[in-house]
Amino acid sequence: MEKKYFIEMDKKDPLKEFRNHFFLPKNTIYFDGNSLGMAPKITKKRMEHVIRKEWGQGLIRSWADEEWGISGQRIGNKISKLIGANDGEVIAADSTSINIYKALTATIQCNQNRNIILSTNDNFPTDLYMMQGLQSFSPNEVKNKIVNKDEIDKYLDERVAALLLTEVDYKTGEILSMSEITKKAHDKGILVIWDLSHSVGSIPVDLNKCAADFAVGCGYKFLNGGPGAPAFLFVAKKHQEKIRPILSGWMGHKNPFDFSIEYKPADGIDRFLCGTPPLLGLIALECGVDLILKAKVSRLRQKAVKLSSLFIELMESMCSEFDFKLVSPRDENRRAGHVSFMHHSGFAVSRALASKGIVGDFRAPNIVRFGIAPMYTRFQDIFDAVNIIRETMQSDLWKNHENDISPYT
Amino acid sequence: MEKKYFIEMDKKDPLKEFRNHFFLPKNTIYFDGNSLGMAPKITKKRMEHVIRKEWGQGLIRSWADEEWGISGQRIGNKISKLIGANDGEVIAADSTSINIYKALTATIQCNQNRNIILSTNDNFPTDLYMMQGLQSFSPNEVKNKIVNKDEIDKYLDERVAALLLTEVDYKTGEILSMSEITKKAHDKGILVIWDLSHSVGSIPVDLNKCAADFAVGCGYKFLNGGPGAPAFLFVAKKHQEKIRPILSGWMGHKNPFDFSIEYKPADGIDRFLCGTPPLLGLIALECGVDLILKAKVSRLRQKAVKLSSLFIELMESMCSEFDFKLVSPRDENRRAGHVSFMHHSGFAVSRALASKGIVGDFRAPNIVRFGIAPMYTRFQDIFDAVNIIRETMQSDLWKNHENDISPYT
Repeated sequence: MEKKYFIEMDKKDPLKEFRNHFFLPKNTIYFDGNSLGMAPKITKKRMEHVIRKEWGQGLIRSWADEEWGISGQRIGNKISKLIGANDGEVIAADSTSINIYKALTATIQCNQNRNIILSTNDNFPTDLYMMQGLQSFSPNEVKNKIVNKDEIDKYLDERVAALLLTEVDYKTGEILSMSEITKKAHDKGILVIWDLSHSVGSIPVDLNKCAADFAVGCGYKFLNGGPGAPAFLFVAKKHQEKIRPILSGWMGHKNPFDFSIEYKPADGIDRFLCGTPPLLGLIALECGVDLILKAKVSRLRQKAVKLSSLFIELMESMCSEFDFKLVSPRDENRRAGHVSFMHHSGFAVSRALASKGIVGDFRAPNIVRFGIAPMYTRFQDIFDAVNIIRETMQSDLWKNHENDISPYT
Repeated sequence: MEKKYFIEMDKKDPLKEFRNHFFLPKNTIYFDGNSLGMAPKITKKRMEHVIRKEWGQGLIRSWADEEWGISGQRIGNKISKLIGANDGEVIAADSTSINIYKALTATIQCNQNRNIILSTNDNFPTDLYMMQGLQSFSPNEVKNKIVNKDEIDKYLDERVAALLLTEVDYKTGEILSMSEITKKAHDKGILVIWDLSHSVGSIPVDLNKCAADFAVGCGYKFLNGGPGAPAFLFVAKKHQEKIRPILSGWMGHKNPFDFSIEYKPADGIDRFLCGTPPLLGLIALECGVDLILKAKVSRLRQKAVKLSSLFIELMESMCSEFDFKLVSPRDENRRAGHVSFMHHSGFAVSRALASKGIVGDFRAPNIVRFGIAPMYTRFQDIFDAVNIIRETMQSDLWKNHENDISPYT
């Protein structure tokens, strides 16, 4: 395949204009949009306005006049369109970890005569850590059970209150079957919490079609909501009124400005709010979400599949002698927004590539991960990147990085 | 007192330049800096830089290169200088409500053979609501006890694990004696959690001199950190290593980027981090904190006492016929950064004043609250405000607002 084929693909790309909505890093092909999405230009403009006008001039009045006070719900409703939920089922608030805790404690309330939380050993660590926090502090001796992904079925029984799974594996990009697993769990009376951190804005998700119970997800990956953006929480309508939130902060109160001393949960999804909404972060998140809605997940997904399939094809044809082993599913229907290769010196390779402007990331012990975000990644980037990867590997440059120290410790 | 006296005071004010660091709302005298502090100009500039350069260009690398990853600790160390704590005892993270939950669960761990949490019925509601959340979900049947402020002593006994108090009353501005109460509680083996939301950046606080255990506080009031700014948590060095955080997210892990499946708490204060740091909010908070550090709390406090004493004096001399009754302590040593008056139609009065550009706020059932933030409030504002209040009351304008609906519901 020659470069002109890729340039031709870019010309025909119905999403090509979206790249212009982002600040583009110089001398970089960015393959880490699944870890931190790029910065939309509109975010800078909107933030200036919010600081100078809404905060600077409107001050306290903007909580009402600019609808700051309902921004978590407004953005939640927008996110709901990306994940097959309804209005009033999603809020943007807090971090993914905190929202996991809200969902976990809710499942224990809904399933009071059960005390096992089930998850998999390849789940994202914070999901497991929040489970461990819950296990160390809960009223009815909650016990965690962490199993291999392919053994889940075996452990779905009447003692299990909840199953916490991440739909898209953060290392391999493998997509689990949400509909199938949710159904199996429900057959045993088990509630399911889906972590959509690597799904939202990347692949189509249809929570209500799967009769899903709870979900959480991250705002700073494919949603381009900014570093440490607020996360979101989905609670199916059918469960909302049964739950008395444990993290019962004043913003989840039915009448927060009555300042009464007894907590009374707000109606619906609002009760899952806790502290004062992190307005600046929410505004940045909304800018990212608006762009995804405009681009449409179905179109983004179509382009992403083409980009990543081409990437795999090129890597395997041009870099076959360098010991990369595909760990992502080859089947495009089972592979989400990132492509991962195992390499025995994965860390050194990822550092060498970064020095050449190919920014992906490394996941211990040996995975080089390439996030392929179709909002701003061009087909020609795929071609150029694989050529640079080939040169970098041929030159043995990566060997100079074997003793590098990770900047993230 | 004539206006020229106030103008003279402004001329002599060593802090007068600080007003120029803020976006000033037009036609407004702002008395709500204790609810949402004004917007520093530098925040807009810094945010533009962070979005365009650090995020836009640096992308994922900025977590290390721009030290995003340790911003919660860096800002925590700055806040520690405002509250008499040491480096490594404070983090900026999450909301005040979430940090209250972290502190509450920590006290239960530290005092395992006790199960009562004590607080007062005039505490800020979210503090009480978080206690209620904990009571409804805890391993050893935690029970809350909510008493009158003047009865605290009576309830300090060996069953009490923790006492949760707000140092400065959100309605009246009354300052509790942190040293005295902490000592009494410690004598009975009780840990104290101080909520510093209305203290930090307003009055001198010396946590370590009081041998304090835990504290939380708010970033968007006197710290001018922006709407819904991240909050902070103080955990005294002596307690840190004893605590296994319940909200044990990946950022509190000893080696988060090892992605191991077992949670292992980080050393020191870092273990109290949970999710990914909300970077945009943290940056805005840091801008506000830097300004307070530059102005110095001791100088701010001196000016605030003068401003609020003059405000009380003028209100009582010029508005005596309008049924305002001071509910803040008259003794300036017992009164913090806001001055509150009771008025039988407090809500209508506060709405009428707002329509005249005097922006304070209302706290149910009948309190009109004037926050007096010395960073940007001038002596002449005090004079002008009381004159406008007098005119508004004389004209009976407030009666038109008796059926207004609160914008904050």
